[in-house]
Amino acid sequence: MRMGEDPPVEVWIADNLSAEAVIGIDSWCISVDSAQRYEQAFLKNNQTLFQLSSDLVDEVWKDRPPNDATPVIVHPVEFAGRSVAQKMKELREKLQHEKASGIIITALDEVAWLYNVRGNDVHYSPVVHSYAIVTLHGAFFYVDKRKVTTEVKNYMSESGIDIREYDMVQLDVSLLASGQLKGSAVNGSLHMEKDINVAEQSKIWIDSNSCCLALYSKLRPDQALMLQSPITLPKAVKNPMELTGLRKAHIRDGAAVVQYLAWLDNQMQENYGASGYFSEANGSQKKEHLEIKLTEVSVSDKLEAFRAEKEHFKGLSFPTISSVGPNAAIIHYSPEANTCAELDADKIYLCDSGAQYLDGTTDITRTVHFGKPSEHQKSCYTAVLKGHIALDAAVFPNGTTGHALDILARTPLWKSGLDYRHGTGHGIGSYLNVHEGPHLISFRPSARNVPLQASMTVTDEPGYYEDGNFGIRLENVLIVKEADTKFNFGEKGYLSFEHITWAPYQTKLINTALLTPAEIEWVNLYHSDCQKILESYLNVQEKEWLRKATEPITTS
Amino acid sequence: MRMGEDPPVEVWIADNLSAEAVIGIDSWCISVDSAQRYEQAFLKNNQTLFQLSSDLVDEVWKDRPPNDATPVIVHPVEFAGRSVAQKMKELREKLQHEKASGIIITALDEVAWLYNVRGNDVHYSPVVHSYAIVTLHGAFFYVDKRKVTTEVKNYMSESGIDIREYDMVQLDVSLLASGQLKGSAVNGSLHMEKDINVAEQSKIWIDSNSCCLALYSKLRPDQALMLQSPITLPKAVKNPMELTGLRKAHIRDGAAVVQYLAWLDNQMQENYGASGYFSEANGSQKKEHLEIKLTEVSVSDKLEAFRAEKEHFKGLSFPTISSVGPNAAIIHYSPEANTCAELDADKIYLCDSGAQYLDGTTDITRTVHFGKPSEHQKSCYTAVLKGHIALDAAVFPNGTTGHALDILARTPLWKSGLDYRHGTGHGIGSYLNVHEGPHLISFRPSARNVPLQASMTVTDEPGYYEDGNFGIRLENVLIVKEADTKFNFGEKGYLSFEHITWAPYQTKLINTALLTPAEIEWVNLYHSDCQKILESYLNVQEKEWLRKATEPITTS
Repeated sequence: MRMGEDPPVEVWIADNLSAEAVIGIDSWCISVDSAQRYEQAFLKNNQTLFQLSSDLVDEVWKDRPPNDATPVIVHPVEFAGRSVAQKMKELREKLQHEKASGIIITALDEVAWLYNVRGNDVHYSPVVHSYAIVTLHGAFFYVDKRKVTTEVKNYMSESGIDIREYDMVQLDVSLLASGQLKGSAVNGSLHMEKDINVAEQSKIWIDSNSCCLALYSKLRPDQALMLQSPITLPKAVKNPMELTGLRKAHIRDGAAVVQYLAWLDNQMQENYGASGYFSEANGSQKKEHLEIKLTEVSVSDKLEAFRAEKEHFKGLSFPTISSVGPNAAIIHYSPEANTCAELDADKIYLCDSGAQYLDGTTDITRTVHFGKPSEHQKSCYTAVLKGHIALDAAVFPNGTTGHALDILARTPLWKSGLDYRHGTGHGIGSYLNVHEGPHLISFRPSARNVPLQASMTVTDEPGYYEDGNFGIRLENVLIVKEADTKFNFGEKGYLSFEHITWAPYQTKLINTALLTPAEIEWVNLYHSDCQKILESYLNVQEKEWLRKATEPITTS
Repeated sequence: MRMGEDPPVEVWIADNLSAEAVIGIDSWCISVDSAQRYEQAFLKNNQTLFQLSSDLVDEVWKDRPPNDATPVIVHPVEFAGRSVAQKMKELREKLQHEKASGIIITALDEVAWLYNVRGNDVHYSPVVHSYAIVTLHGAFFYVDKRKVTTEVKNYMSESGIDIREYDMVQLDVSLLASGQLKGSAVNGSLHMEKDINVAEQSKIWIDSNSCCLALYSKLRPDQALMLQSPITLPKAVKNPMELTGLRKAHIRDGAAVVQYLAWLDNQMQENYGASGYFSEANGSQKKEHLEIKLTEVSVSDKLEAFRAEKEHFKGLSFPTISSVGPNAAIIHYSPEANTCAELDADKIYLCDSGAQYLDGTTDITRTVHFGKPSEHQKSCYTAVLKGHIALDAAVFPNGTTGHALDILARTPLWKSGLDYRHGTGHGIGSYLNVHEGPHLISFRPSARNVPLQASMTVTDEPGYYEDGNFGIRLENVLIVKEADTKFNFGEKGYLSFEHITWAPYQTKLINTALLTPAEIEWVNLYHSDCQKILESYLNVQEKEWLRKATEPITTS
């Protein structure tokens, strides 16, 4: 089922189960918002949602291996940019402002961000399976204690955070609800002239979009303060040290992508008879007996190897979308080693990839052709590039949402009756999740909720996909910054973007006749920056390859 | 108070009256929506809304002159494009579909559109003070019977419409509510195999956005079907005959504007020493003793005279915004004969005007300078023009709202930190209201409600206003049409615009270095079309003036 096109899950369930059916759920695996939406949908056929008291999967999965206990790591302030103490102070001020005595934090990246810790419990995201509760006077970290080293124990203690066993969260939420949750911490609690009036300060803050039904159910309904988490926005608006880290991580990451493209170009010519990255000629025959067979997975392993050599590399930020020809038209394609396609000198190759570095998370897409692209493919690539540039170059007043900006990336495609079915951009974490809210650039209504703000990160990734044929996507990461406009009408302040992703566009795929002089200038400036910024990471051959890849284009 | 910036009226009242205050209203002068919004706002201070039984203004205004009784006119089907019978058939099908037994129509332009009548009861809008009720079997027109000629009487009778005295509407709504409203009409009612089940078909449709509280109060609350009026959308989507009429009306109207500009150019040179429309030189001295003094009002009277000579002219469609210098920065400026400014060869002149013709309603804005504009004024004019062109040239899939398109007209201004505080476009009637919903092109949330559809009309009017200094606005009327795109991704169908307004842009005010080649081509094509289309309406001098005004521009 396709989101936005097919009926939502709960509507499908309501329509396909009998009237008065009882639908059991695991209340640890569903958010309050989803549960309420489900209940609403089930009403019309008198169906009801029932919270199971045990996990049915556990009951049948007898030989489930125990969880790994990979250690929790302290994320140093030289990368995090702000201390836990600073973050906690601001959080507690927000609690007080909303007359809340505490907050339950269930989103793993929010716990990691708030306590400046990272882990290895979820593929591609350096988070820890954990919960946090913060009250005006205490702070709690619920985690499998086997993961807690002495260093972390000391660090938590100094930060005024009590470490508790993961399963204790349920009991502690009940204590929190009845005003009896007391921490042992002496540091970090909010300094107050006199004790806070408990009656006035009795709400418990939860974000109903992320908080699980199980914990919510421990609160009295009138006690829950359901608002967007106060951590979402400070996490999305990066601090200067995080921005510096993100810029540096993207330079190393861009260098790896360039090394990869240069390597792949060479391989495609030597083994597959391709005319190569720079030539539009027809290729020669592919070698009959290949020493190395290039598949979507084997080449992406090479890309990972280039990244792994770089400083602060910790792993990938999502499964690499390494896709040839028709596979590139599948937006969330994920190749498997045994079944994936082989590279092909006559087909477009789309590679969407990213990594986790201690100083930042990356996400980049480039689309290339090592043989002779069709005129149609060039037109489409050029239209996608025009949209990509239009968003990158946008200047807009404070208060503008990603919902309003989305159209800028689409109009060049729309002119030919083309479009893409995904959003144009998402926030990106600082050594955290590669997809991060609350803002996004999209036609979807949720993109209306939060205006873009200076120091947010967001991707710029328009595309075009022709089912069964080929796909094109170009993606950079942008930082929202204050724009240096000549005027400031309405005293609103104007914003623009800084791109921090560095890897060339394939000029062979650009039909320059379709670009405006300003767009040509944009490409040439980007390429010249690219060369200067990446040079020091490259060997002689790679440098030469990049020099050729970034040669200025003209109006032909 | 400024809408969207200051608190809404009801919030201001709630905050400024004492607790438990009772706020009286005339229930004939407030819509159901507004009344409900007011009641909601008054709740917090225990204030209440009270429907007065008499009109307090009537009680003090003893010498109020009687209403005029200007006759109702039948709007011939050669202009209306569709007969009352056709419109009524579709309306009744919608009533049946929604299980409604009838509809109360209070919006004057909806009554005029549905019954194909026009009048002269409201300045600038050719509507009749009237109500309509349509049931599955009957139709009623509530109007001051002195306005009804024999022709109209016969026409209404043939169309199956009962004419009733204006004040009868109140009683008839009560009868409608109790299922007792019977018409005498034999024609036009919906043909049905058997009588409709009254219990099933008992809702009364009102549009709570336009229906007055007085009539709504006659219904049982559970009886009111509160949905957008089923007339709004068919009225906004013009039929082919209306489109033909609108195109023709705009040609005559454009000719009048060209005649006016040529005349004004001559006057400004002869009497005010201006260097003129085509020259950027400094002017000479203004004549000491002017034969005719040119004021904002006197020149707009001349514009009206040019329009009045044209076929099918019936009057203006709104008070002409004829504004010099700082007055042009006041978006809804309305000059008064005694107090208005004199024209000035050193200041920008903005003229936003329109007329009612039997075959269509027009609305056009041009901004000109008869002396030496500053470089800043030229940059601003060019940015406004770029936005105006970007919207005009947009191609977009079906389903796109004016909310999404609005940004296209703003981005060229935003690049310099400039903006305007009004929406970019509104629908326009067919010899009806010059502002017409339900769609609009705007950043306001209401622009999200209705996607643009083929055959809708909409204005394209970005601007820039510098308080106390000058204002710029350029406005054309567009028709939404199916776009002839090479592809049709997602099988949605793509739309674009046809501009139907014809009058030159002042090339002297364009900084061509800021235009792209495509924008220059757009201006030159528009100007060449302008000349061809208007020629036959102009005398030799005017023709020569237009030829010069539409000379191709180049990249300098």
